[in-house]
Amino acid sequence: MGARVGRGSDAAQRYAVVMAGGVGSRFWPHSRRRRPKQFLNVQGDDSLLEATVRRLRGLVPDERILVVAGPEFTPLIRDHLPSLPPENLIVEPAARGTAPCLGLAARVIERRDPRAVMAVFPADHVIQPLSTFHRTVGAAFAVAERERCLVTFGIAPTGPATGFGYIEVGAELRRGRPKVFAAMRFVEKPDVATAKRYLGTGRYLWNSGMFVWRVDVLREALERYEPAIARAVDALTATSDGRSRLFEELRSVSIDVAVMERAERVAVVASEFEWNDVGSWAAMEAIWPRDGHGNAARGPVLQIDCRNTVASADGRLIAMVGVEDLIVVDSPDAILICPKDRAEEVRRVVDALAKGGDGKYL
Amino acid sequence: MGARVGRGSDAAQRYAVVMAGGVGSRFWPHSRRRRPKQFLNVQGDDSLLEATVRRLRGLVPDERILVVAGPEFTPLIRDHLPSLPPENLIVEPAARGTAPCLGLAARVIERRDPRAVMAVFPADHVIQPLSTFHRTVGAAFAVAERERCLVTFGIAPTGPATGFGYIEVGAELRRGRPKVFAAMRFVEKPDVATAKRYLGTGRYLWNSGMFVWRVDVLREALERYEPAIARAVDALTATSDGRSRLFEELRSVSIDVAVMERAERVAVVASEFEWNDVGSWAAMEAIWPRDGHGNAARGPVLQIDCRNTVASADGRLIAMVGVEDLIVVDSPDAILICPKDRAEEVRRVVDALAKGGDGKYL
Repeated sequence: MGARVGRGSDAAQRYAVVMAGGVGSRFWPHSRRRRPKQFLNVQGDDSLLEATVRRLRGLVPDERILVVAGPEFTPLIRDHLPSLPPENLIVEPAARGTAPCLGLAARVIERRDPRAVMAVFPADHVIQPLSTFHRTVGAAFAVAERERCLVTFGIAPTGPATGFGYIEVGAELRRGRPKVFAAMRFVEKPDVATAKRYLGTGRYLWNSGMFVWRVDVLREALERYEPAIARAVDALTATSDGRSRLFEELRSVSIDVAVMERAERVAVVASEFEWNDVGSWAAMEAIWPRDGHGNAARGPVLQIDCRNTVASADGRLIAMVGVEDLIVVDSPDAILICPKDRAEEVRRVVDALAKGGDGKYL
Repeated sequence: MGARVGRGSDAAQRYAVVMAGGVGSRFWPHSRRRRPKQFLNVQGDDSLLEATVRRLRGLVPDERILVVAGPEFTPLIRDHLPSLPPENLIVEPAARGTAPCLGLAARVIERRDPRAVMAVFPADHVIQPLSTFHRTVGAAFAVAERERCLVTFGIAPTGPATGFGYIEVGAELRRGRPKVFAAMRFVEKPDVATAKRYLGTGRYLWNSGMFVWRVDVLREALERYEPAIARAVDALTATSDGRSRLFEELRSVSIDVAVMERAERVAVVASEFEWNDVGSWAAMEAIWPRDGHGNAARGPVLQIDCRNTVASADGRLIAMVGVEDLIVVDSPDAILICPKDRAEEVRRVVDALAKGGDGKYL
């Protein structure tokens, strides 16, 4: 791993791929089996998916924005993105993690445009401001185009988070802002002590799960490290009837494990935009308006003598008296109450409902 | 105060009066301005008012059960009690506390039946079992009839509650169960230290707010201690058009302060039924079914890793993860979240809504 600055020499076309296939259950009761987080409005009037695509406008032409997801989400995606050209919706035959997913997207684009460079964005992040995002992604495109390396976006940690992977940075690869480093090492989600140690060194960034690479560079990496994936996406994109058997037989694997941790030329762009992966309802305290006592709320919420709560009303009034660090989320047919520090356990509700046969709430 | 056993000598007719004029705000969002607690179902399918009247059947004849409340509740009372004879609904011209209310009820009954004895029950208590209740009230009727004293129902304290008044008991007035004592002293709601001291003596009972007296005995007591009330209810019941000016000019005063604390012949029946004044949502933990972790719930509630919560679902599912000692109440247009030990502060929600002009939730 690591990358040195050299001279690129092409006029690559820039593409953006939005991954919209997530099936998270941590946003129950708003997220449901058939309506995962990326289709929810968490800020403003647009869904996270719509906001993600809107954020890409001006960065790449509309006709070069693609969305990849499983077939079950096709109707929702058409509904949320009516102007998406039908050929720009890539349907995964099966959910096998981000490595097969992105291998497929890269191969679809490469068959369209062999010199393409593609940026990858999960459909469920909140990022601002737009100008900083565009400048940062532009820099990442330039590095991927010229250096033929895999580029990832690192986020300066704001605390010893244990919910993200970390990237250890090496040498700085160019002057100016944003800073671009050689990536020395990818590490999985650490424990708190390890995360604190990482923060102390000043050499670690959060792994955002956003990437830029030339499609031929990714293909070569997959051919080398994950030939089964390379073969499967090749078979799937070579024929018009989409032979999906090889793809379905793949094991699930993330792009980090499959490629990023192994590749030799990986760069990390130290991103300066505000980034929120909206990992649970607790993340909303950084997104929704807050009062002077740290209470974040959306909709008609009355918080009396409350501290650091997160509340989402959905038509009905939520009245809270004397509670702290609590999440309250209303929806048309179900209400969630959970302490902020247990927001990850919302999936236990989904599990319990599934086991109890309460399918109507799933 | 105090009472000695003597010989009574009458064949009094027994009446029961249900006070249905309360306007408590501690049961928001279920209780509203126009639908106070007594009109809510908290147990089973009947409202507290319906259950209170049903509990009296067999104790007095149906035609001698009366209900007293302000005019704003007349339609609701007719709705909840369709078989109540119209002449048995006593309308208070104004809410002036329990002394004017009960003075009025006693005078209405006395004009119908000068030798009547009446029992008084708030419409918003939960009492069981029925047989013990009937036996206890029967004993109280007998004492009131024979001894010409004011009889109150004392409840054996289950803890140092600060939400009730206490009655200090004196000499036992008769043999057998339930025990009947002379009432030595009425004390207002004590602080915790005082309440603990009371419990230590074994000589104090909770003041339940339920009474039995001969209507002539109450009239004489009011004429002596609160002549303005006696005059007001006399004027109101003497004429068919109900002159209410004197009544409206009365100050608000409870029957405890106006009469019970001053009267010389007061007896207290040590009641053996289970009694719950349903003072706040926290009281529901003793009424609704509980799981092995002390969680009381009504309706579809999913409690994962919760302890000692109180939850009332109202069509929608309430899912709670990892919370303790919390009250959650859903209603068609509003949701309440509040710690159990702050259940009294629910009225702050009502106050805030009133100040904020959110009349639709009141």
